[in-house]
Amino acid sequence: MAKIVTLGELMLRLSPEGNDRFIQSDHFRVIPGGGEANVAISLANYGHDADFVTKLPKHEIGQLALNAMRRYGVGTSHIVRGGERVGIYYAETGASMRPSKVIYDRAHSAIAEARPEEFDFDEIFEGAQWFHWSGITPAISDNAADIVKAACEAAKRHGVTVSVDLNFRKKLWTSEKAISIMRPLMQYVDVCIGNEEDAMLCLGFKPDADIEGGKTDAAGYHKIFEQMAKTFGFKYVVSTLRESYSATHNGWKALIYNGEEFYESRHYDIEPIIDRVGGGDSFAGGLIHGLLTKPTQGEALEFAVAASALKHTINGDFNLVSKEEVESLAAGNANGRVQR
Amino acid sequence: MAKIVTLGELMLRLSPEGNDRFIQSDHFRVIPGGGEANVAISLANYGHDADFVTKLPKHEIGQLALNAMRRYGVGTSHIVRGGERVGIYYAETGASMRPSKVIYDRAHSAIAEARPEEFDFDEIFEGAQWFHWSGITPAISDNAADIVKAACEAAKRHGVTVSVDLNFRKKLWTSEKAISIMRPLMQYVDVCIGNEEDAMLCLGFKPDADIEGGKTDAAGYHKIFEQMAKTFGFKYVVSTLRESYSATHNGWKALIYNGEEFYESRHYDIEPIIDRVGGGDSFAGGLIHGLLTKPTQGEALEFAVAASALKHTINGDFNLVSKEEVESLAAGNANGRVQR
Amino acid sequence: MAKIVTLGELMLRLSPEGNDRFIQSDHFRVIPGGGEANVAISLANYGHDADFVTKLPKHEIGQLALNAMRRYGVGTSHIVRGGERVGIYYAETGASMRPSKVIYDRAHSAIAEARPEEFDFDEIFEGAQWFHWSGITPAISDNAADIVKAACEAAKRHGVTVSVDLNFRKKLWTSEKAISIMRPLMQYVDVCIGNEEDAMLCLGFKPDADIEGGKTDAAGYHKIFEQMAKTFGFKYVVSTLRESYSATHNGWKALIYNGEEFYESRHYDIEPIIDRVGGGDSFAGGLIHGLLTKPTQGEALEFAVAASALKHTINGDFNLVSKEEVESLAAGNANGRVQR
Amino acid sequence: MAKIVTLGELMLRLSPEGNDRFIQSDHFRVIPGGGEANVAISLANYGHDADFVTKLPKHEIGQLALNAMRRYGVGTSHIVRGGERVGIYYAETGASMRPSKVIYDRAHSAIAEARPEEFDFDEIFEGAQWFHWSGITPAISDNAADIVKAACEAAKRHGVTVSVDLNFRKKLWTSEKAISIMRPLMQYVDVCIGNEEDAMLCLGFKPDADIEGGKTDAAGYHKIFEQMAKTFGFKYVVSTLRESYSATHNGWKALIYNGEEFYESRHYDIEPIIDRVGGGDSFAGGLIHGLLTKPTQGEALEFAVAASALKHTINGDFNLVSKEEVESLAAGNANGRVQR
Amino acid sequence: MAKIVTLGELMLRLSPEGNDRFIQSDHFRVIPGGGEANVAISLANYGHDADFVTKLPKHEIGQLALNAMRRYGVGTSHIVRGGERVGIYYAETGASMRPSKVIYDRAHSAIAEARPEEFDFDEIFEGAQWFHWSGITPAISDNAADIVKAACEAAKRHGVTVSVDLNFRKKLWTSEKAISIMRPLMQYVDVCIGNEEDAMLCLGFKPDADIEGGKTDAAGYHKIFEQMAKTFGFKYVVSTLRESYSATHNGWKALIYNGEEFYESRHYDIEPIIDRVGGGDSFAGGLIHGLLTKPTQGEALEFAVAASALKHTINGDFNLVSKEEVESLAAGNANGRVQR
Amino acid sequence: MAKIVTLGELMLRLSPEGNDRFIQSDHFRVIPGGGEANVAISLANYGHDADFVTKLPKHEIGQLALNAMRRYGVGTSHIVRGGERVGIYYAETGASMRPSKVIYDRAHSAIAEARPEEFDFDEIFEGAQWFHWSGITPAISDNAADIVKAACEAAKRHGVTVSVDLNFRKKLWTSEKAISIMRPLMQYVDVCIGNEEDAMLCLGFKPDADIEGGKTDAAGYHKIFEQMAKTFGFKYVVSTLRESYSATHNGWKALIYNGEEFYESRHYDIEPIIDRVGGGDSFAGGLIHGLLTKPTQGEALEFAVAASALKHTINGDFNLVSKEEVESLAAGNANGRVQR
Repeated sequence: MAKIVTLGELMLRLSPEGNDRFIQSDHFRVIPGGGEANVAISLANYGHDADFVTKLPKHEIGQLALNAMRRYGVGTSHIVRGGERVGIYYAETGASMRPSKVIYDRAHSAIAEARPEEFDFDEIFEGAQWFHWSGITPAISDNAADIVKAACEAAKRHGVTVSVDLNFRKKLWTSEKAISIMRPLMQYVDVCIGNEEDAMLCLGFKPDADIEGGKTDAAGYHKIFEQMAKTFGFKYVVSTLRESYSATHNGWKALIYNGEEFYESRHYDIEPIIDRVGGGDSFAGGLIHGLLTKPTQGEALEFAVAASALKHTINGDFNLVSKEEVESLAAGNANGRVQR
Repeated sequence: MAKIVTLGELMLRLSPEGNDRFIQSDHFRVIPGGGEANVAISLANYGHDADFVTKLPKHEIGQLALNAMRRYGVGTSHIVRGGERVGIYYAETGASMRPSKVIYDRAHSAIAEARPEEFDFDEIFEGAQWFHWSGITPAISDNAADIVKAACEAAKRHGVTVSVDLNFRKKLWTSEKAISIMRPLMQYVDVCIGNEEDAMLCLGFKPDADIEGGKTDAAGYHKIFEQMAKTFGFKYVVSTLRESYSATHNGWKALIYNGEEFYESRHYDIEPIIDRVGGGDSFAGGLIHGLLTKPTQGEALEFAVAASALKHTINGDFNLVSKEEVESLAAGNANGRVQR
Repeated sequence: MAKIVTLGELMLRLSPEGNDRFIQSDHFRVIPGGGEANVAISLANYGHDADFVTKLPKHEIGQLALNAMRRYGVGTSHIVRGGERVGIYYAETGASMRPSKVIYDRAHSAIAEARPEEFDFDEIFEGAQWFHWSGITPAISDNAADIVKAACEAAKRHGVTVSVDLNFRKKLWTSEKAISIMRPLMQYVDVCIGNEEDAMLCLGFKPDADIEGGKTDAAGYHKIFEQMAKTFGFKYVVSTLRESYSATHNGWKALIYNGEEFYESRHYDIEPIIDRVGGGDSFAGGLIHGLLTKPTQGEALEFAVAASALKHTINGDFNLVSKEEVESLAAGNANGRVQR
Repeated sequence: MAKIVTLGELMLRLSPEGNDRFIQSDHFRVIPGGGEANVAISLANYGHDADFVTKLPKHEIGQLALNAMRRYGVGTSHIVRGGERVGIYYAETGASMRPSKVIYDRAHSAIAEARPEEFDFDEIFEGAQWFHWSGITPAISDNAADIVKAACEAAKRHGVTVSVDLNFRKKLWTSEKAISIMRPLMQYVDVCIGNEEDAMLCLGFKPDADIEGGKTDAAGYHKIFEQMAKTFGFKYVVSTLRESYSATHNGWKALIYNGEEFYESRHYDIEPIIDRVGGGDSFAGGLIHGLLTKPTQGEALEFAVAASALKHTINGDFNLVSKEEVESLAAGNANGRVQR
Repeated sequence: MAKIVTLGELMLRLSPEGNDRFIQSDHFRVIPGGGEANVAISLANYGHDADFVTKLPKHEIGQLALNAMRRYGVGTSHIVRGGERVGIYYAETGASMRPSKVIYDRAHSAIAEARPEEFDFDEIFEGAQWFHWSGITPAISDNAADIVKAACEAAKRHGVTVSVDLNFRKKLWTSEKAISIMRPLMQYVDVCIGNEEDAMLCLGFKPDADIEGGKTDAAGYHKIFEQMAKTFGFKYVVSTLRESYSATHNGWKALIYNGEEFYESRHYDIEPIIDRVGGGDSFAGGLIHGLLTKPTQGEALEFAVAASALKHTINGDFNLVSKEEVESLAAGNANGRVQR
Repeated sequence: MAKIVTLGELMLRLSPEGNDRFIQSDHFRVIPGGGEANVAISLANYGHDADFVTKLPKHEIGQLALNAMRRYGVGTSHIVRGGERVGIYYAETGASMRPSKVIYDRAHSAIAEARPEEFDFDEIFEGAQWFHWSGITPAISDNAADIVKAACEAAKRHGVTVSVDLNFRKKLWTSEKAISIMRPLMQYVDVCIGNEEDAMLCLGFKPDADIEGGKTDAAGYHKIFEQMAKTFGFKYVVSTLRESYSATHNGWKALIYNGEEFYESRHYDIEPIIDRVGGGDSFAGGLIHGLLTKPTQGEALEFAVAASALKHTINGDFNLVSKEEVESLAAGNANGRVQR
């Protein structure tokens, strides 16, 4: 059981029921979530001492979001309280050839307007073994980028392993801005998760292949992984490889590279997909658990891929599965027989 | 932006949640819908000035139905108010090999008991470019058939293009009755939508192939389309071709004939189907938009088929999609990736 | 119309909505069910005079359970009232590679603590033609095993045909205990439903093949069926053969042996599965109806398999389908076209 | 335990949730109900052998309605199956000074179009002790009036006590029509329930006081009760006396006259009212039980008033209370302390 | 039927079900609303040609809000589309001594960031008779204050009557800021709605009495009304007078002054209150209708007070009542008897 | 901020929606609760370090219950995991004269079958200031009584203040059994909460007055409080005094005695009551907070009474209010005005 810190934004997802569209809905499910918050939930579910750092307003909506983390056992004692807004995103769930749709309303949230000095990162990283963040957080605002930098520096002071999920979001920043912020932050990173598109848009690498259209080719990733590892000294470079057949049917596998060898995971055919939002985060959570507890990068990756395959079958951002459930799937039990 | 008039019945669909059966339900979703009303909604969504004509009671249930049209931007100023009932249909949604089931309770509705003289069709068609109706409306009652006839005559007086969706419904009338009403109305029709079964049962053509069992064969439609175009002078004859593998999995494409050439659309594999009721209406709505705005019958048909494929992924009778969403699918973006 | 008696436990299933997990739910659907109760519901739906025997507390929760049987037309006049608890089971519905999960809380229920002398089986079997029970009931408690024995004896005194669904449940008893209870009870049984695993664990037969992993091989069942028929004098030995591809996609067929010939049914591909709990019970219900009303074991089996295929598309334990719907599917109408 | 027959229409009530208005709702609760059906439910709850007679379509919506009766233990074996429609009424629940609102859509229901010869009343009344109907049933249609007449005649042939709840409904018929149908039927009636307005509009008596505005005056009823008893030979004349302060606050009591003495019940102050639809029917049900089982008309009336006071606290038409709960309230236990 | 323009913000209210608190909720009702939008809805319900002016984002959440206005018949053709956010407010409904609670998240909404030149007010006021706005709109942002000023100027150019609801909101601005913006705007106002607190905080009048604690004294308002009328030349000064006994029980009346005479309305005792949000807006809507159509200020006020009393019984911001329902209550029909 | 330990059972309450009855429900709200768990939630809401001790099964239903405590900030690190069942209680909410009804199904729960040695009470009470338990816990089982005794002994070893809420439950034990268990435990108690009935049935005091019927008389409690304080050396004797007018309308106040003086609190009139289950627990939680932080017993009691009055307006067992909300009501702000 390791102490793991994640830092980022916790939002409320507002979603119509089932496959209804926004404009036909008169109520929304309220689903707390956010990249690094989702990772913390995964890690708490696997038994780790996960601590999530953010800033949330003092009012009841801020409390609602915070309580969601407590509910699933994530530490919230370093969440700063204050500011005005909880970031929101509206999401409707597609089906078949109709894609899911996300509308963000996250500008001016408490974490976007927070300052690094509000967080005592030396206290936060005391005794920690791992720190995880994603490329979404520095994209939120310059303030948030400053906070990530301060956190990375403190993490390194405390000898904490750092992982990042590059996660380029074109609605939040341009590739130019991303590269200017992200490249300098890579010096603190040990484990880098990102696909070719992320490598290009966040880190400025030149792509080799067309990733558009849901097509993936694990072999095509080898060269760029080697470049990434070499350029930034990453211990591991990792990417999921999603095949998007439709909104409700995907293929799913992943690739890891430890600077020496590549390992490509088992492939999962996921149908139907119940909710794919948070799929990447569940992969990051599974990967951190795997790298912390498994003897090989291959076993770590298989845990991560199985964990994130399961996430696609669960409503909400959080991957509400136990370690045992992931292990069972990673061991090949995918027949879906009723567990009595 | 064209002014388009549709005329027909607006009902309330009462449906169990999800895949529940009628007899296990203690509440029903209330879903307004009806063939031509659904077409009007599609057209309003594509930006047209769609006007829906019917008769609805003055009471709150009539208002509830009318408001559903207003909500999505359809003109309701020519809806006559009065009468006793809003027609109802009960619908449960099947799954896999269990078919969806519809029970109609629409006799004696306000529109079924209305008279042509309650509608001022010359005012209604002032400035209009298109008039659409379906074979369901004259089947409701002799009164309704009279209203359709009056509308067609007025449409022609105003130089309005007329389209019909033949849509034979065996619960509403016999083939003999249908033929006696529908054939004379075909003189007003420019665009005729109907499959081989409709052509046989509504218009008295002799079938060539067995359409039962969900099997379709586009080539088999050529001969009957030519006959239809020749007999009635239709500018376009159009049909969807559905392959019913199960209640939740269909193939979907369409065929159009402009009197000279046939065009067969791209084929869609739709799985899972969320709600296929209104699929044909969404096709009609897409076709009218396509014929009004696209340079070729092929492009018009592709828009219609993409629009109606999307309809199968949306709850309710109404095809709540934008022009841009349809264009995107018609352009081949069917991978269902999350739109952020 | 036959009078058919079933005996067992009626529980309340508490289930999250849709595919939600237990730990993210704040309300549960309340779904009455239980092996033999489910069989009684099927038989009442097919028009039989089905009578369900159990014990339920006098309080409103007991009444809630009892009312569910009355609602669908099952006779409840021989249900003894008293005791403290209605047995509960919690069930969440999986999807894709995530299995459904069941947590039982059924110990100390009214029927588990009832005594045979509380039931007047001679009155119960007066005029009855069939008696059905499952291996779950004697597994609940020694009391319940005594009740089953008393019922079987009375059934035989009244010349009633007896069927059993072996249904080994490892949470309720060990194989040793099961064999010690079940083997002696087989003398009363005419129709035995059970797969190879049941035969091994309940009756002590030695397996020939690995049934794990969802793989089935109808031919592999021939030998054990012959042994079962020979050892206990069963008139029919029957088993379903499920192929579990995922929680939402199964293959489904069955095999019957009348001591002379084997008959293997049509194969159904079920996707998506809405709710597979109660699938086996719906098969038993269909089989009893089939054996009572069809000229051949093959036709009986086809009815049973079609009935249980349909069950997989229906929420809840009860197979809420009519005889006509089953006949239609058994006749090959599986295309799922809307029934208007 | 007496065998009691009631005859009338069973409808589906479609209601928004809580206090929502029709026009803001997108789903309706489905609540089966109807005057005499409600009375049957009450009597089954008190342990009687209640049998409800009507006609319902064979389809699933008819079955849904029928099942609601079975669920609560009412006999349905004399319900004739056939016809097209289940009658509907839409009802929204008011609050404070906003009244509840009911919109009927019941014309052309199966029972409205049934014929007397479809019912075997001699079989129906075999062994019965009581027959109850209301003035709503003959108001539905001339057919239904004929059926009531045939039932009354048969009831009398079998020596069955007959009660009527006059229940004038101005939407269904005029006072003139009502008087022409109802007066001749009074010869069969032993127990007549009706307020002054009913006496005037259904039976043609001249009113003495203004009942409008929710004001009641028990003493003012004495004269008209005497007239009613004298004119038609009623054994009992009974009326509830409602004081309508608001949609959610009513006073409630009743008056009975046995031809010799008047008895005025305890007064209940009901706030908040959860659902007052079916309040009068629950009174009739309580009264029948009281007259069948209590030594005095006063005790019978107190049971009826307590029963119907409780009804106002229960959602739906049916008075889902036990005999013991009514007795407890009639004994003065109105403090609402939690029953553990 | 008058053409009436209202201008302001349209938000989405996110509310727990019933009386649940924010922090125990996992879904929220989505309830469109906003001061002037609510007034427009009232006026459309009374049959006027109500036009609502605001700015809303082009995305589906903006469309959802806009559609709510269309649904109830309000004109939306002058709503400018653009910007990023739809303003939000979270509201939970109190009970008894627990107050309802509102948390605003409306900064940076599309209308708050709009500019006057985006609106063509000369086109908007073409043919209009009345313009209504509230003190909330200029409080949103300096931009919005500029828009209100531009609208007032245009309204005066077109000879349109202008009404304002002062509605001081301490979360949006200080009294000093409010006075500096609002006083200059009063030159355009003909009808001013506001209580003593509004007069003090928005217009800088000195209070005479303590309005805190829910106590009101109509007589105490006379002096300040006279001052207001004299200072700004208002044709009418109007205020509601709410007595807050608890979250679910209020007294309600109003006072109007036409520069010559005072008229105090009937008093309503409202219990239970279903939803009091929008109560003031429903009063403004009723008042505008009253002043446009009634012969005296007294009759106008009685309509307004009855309308707003009814609003307290309806969920959501919108006063979904008809003119006839208001007239009926104003005429004294407050007994809440079921309307069949 | 004090560290406070509470010990008891955490159950799942299964409740119909709103005021629906059990037998008309098809889903239940899942509401975690239990006397001492509820007290812990209150204390966490007021900012204390509340730790709840119990035993819960390892399965997901046990986790669901545990998560509810975490969600609201209660420490769960001393909850022992194991056993079979989570105790259940079914509760329906009454209205007006219909009482709420509770059906317990809690026998054989994990905590009822736990043993004292499973808990390390010396670790649990390390640094604690207060320990609270109720008379329900020792009533569950002899095991549970042993656990309470072990906890009390440890608490005393650690100098922790001990409070008890006597809370006699006749469904769990007889008065004789209660007295035999509870009297010896009183030696550990500093603060005793209980009304006259509890004093009689749990402690064996002779009553002076009839508490039945919801009538209370604070003066009548003086004598018994003096006896209780004298007999057991309690520092405080406290009781709420509920006046039950109906299920939805209660009077509420309390009395405290510190061995020298009596203090009677302000009286609250609560209408409507949303949910009164947990009212007594919220009082205990408020009292502990008051005694820990307020200068006088009077101020402590006023906090407790205001807190518990608010509880009656909140769904669920937990009193989800903040310290500030309680202080505001205790300060007299009961007018229910919207808090914006």
